[in-house]
Amino acid sequence: MQMYDLAGADENHRFSPYCWRTRMACAHKGVPLATIPWRFTDKDMLPRGNNGTVPVIVDGDTVIADSWKIAVYLDEHYPDRPLFGCEAARGAALLIKHWTERSLHPLITRMVVRDVWAGLHETDQPYFRETRERRLGKPLEEAVANREETRTRFREALEPLRALLAEQAFVCGRAPAYADYIVFGTLQWPRCVSGFELLDPADPVHAWRQRLLDMYDGLGERAVRHVS
Amino acid sequence: MQMYDLAGADENHRFSPYCWRTRMACAHKGVPLATIPWRFTDKDMLPRGNNGTVPVIVDGDTVIADSWKIAVYLDEHYPDRPLFGCEAARGAALLIKHWTERSLHPLITRMVVRDVWAGLHETDQPYFRETRERRLGKPLEEAVANREETRTRFREALEPLRALLAEQAFVCGRAPAYADYIVFGTLQWPRCVSGFELLDPADPVHAWRQRLLDMYDGLGERAVRHVS
Repeated sequence: MQMYDLAGADENHRFSPYCWRTRMACAHKGVPLATIPWRFTDKDMLPRGNNGTVPVIVDGDTVIADSWKIAVYLDEHYPDRPLFGCEAARGAALLIKHWTERSLHPLITRMVVRDVWAGLHETDQPYFRETRERRLGKPLEEAVANREETRTRFREALEPLRALLAEQAFVCGRAPAYADYIVFGTLQWPRCVSGFELLDPADPVHAWRQRLLDMYDGLGERAVRHVS
Repeated sequence: MQMYDLAGADENHRFSPYCWRTRMACAHKGVPLATIPWRFTDKDMLPRGNNGTVPVIVDGDTVIADSWKIAVYLDEHYPDRPLFGCEAARGAALLIKHWTERSLHPLITRMVVRDVWAGLHETDQPYFRETRERRLGKPLEEAVANREETRTRFREALEPLRALLAEQAFVCGRAPAYADYIVFGTLQWPRCVSGFELLDPADPVHAWRQRLLDMYDGLGERAVRHVS
């Protein structure tokens, strides 16, 4: 299986939250995954059936775009070691996905978007700056101007996860599964691009992230980081 | 099975979000449930093994307090028509519970806490006012002073659920299960005590709530409301 994976100036620098979800999902299942570095301005390089973003996986003749659809595909075609477990788990994971993307992503963007830009290949930088500044309505440098304050709000936004971790080791119970990888991917993104540490080392969320970083022979821990 | 259930001045007025979770869970399983009206100041009336709050269920010799523990108990002892489906679903439902209680409950309190007080029995009113005003740090009337503004934030906080409903009918997929009843119970609480409508009728969350109100012979729809 191959995955088109967002890369920075260093082609081994891989930090997309969505690609991290897919990478962890494949490791969970023991499905070997080869990655193809891809950059924002390589739109034409993606196989047919993409929507202009990564991850895109190619499995024989099948092309699947979108990390959520890839997870559903993996459970259908590689049923061992399920990512979801049952329909209700998949349903609830979809709510956790939307919680993650709507409550956590905007706050993370306002802490590290300038660091993301700094790590990109020079061919990607103008595209990234232009599209993100249009979305944010301000220069990247201004968007991250109050990041200590944003971090306080970010840590508050993690409260539901922190409360869960007082009762169990992983979102999915005693062992991690896809709902864990959703939130993990989102935390791996700032960790790979920025020296600005989002989590307090004493936070149970930090310990949970570390447990996931250490899994699958330290797949997450070994990630190349470019932290400015 | 019997459930001690929070009641207002009218003993048929039942509005506790946690008791609604248990009521829907028993209906889901087809387990008949008799309820015993209980008021905040009836602490001594609860059977041994309680923690001073409802719901408490009594099933033969077994007493279980806390709506989450009751749901887990129900799935263990009445395995037909599961509330969770698998361990990962139960894990994810716990995150949804904490999201609901930490993101939605505080906002709902700041819209309807004064209406909750108004519907209580006169023996409960001083206890409720005193404990809630201490928690809120202000009189109940002040806490709900800007509720139109709070409602705007509340509707924003529902965005993850709204995004999910664009893709599937229930949190748990094609049919509801416990994660649905968690959020539903929380919305049934203000609906039973207040004329202040929290949801826009055009909101997909409103349609989802209506589907749940109509289930089990309209168990939720038939609830006694005292809306001031």
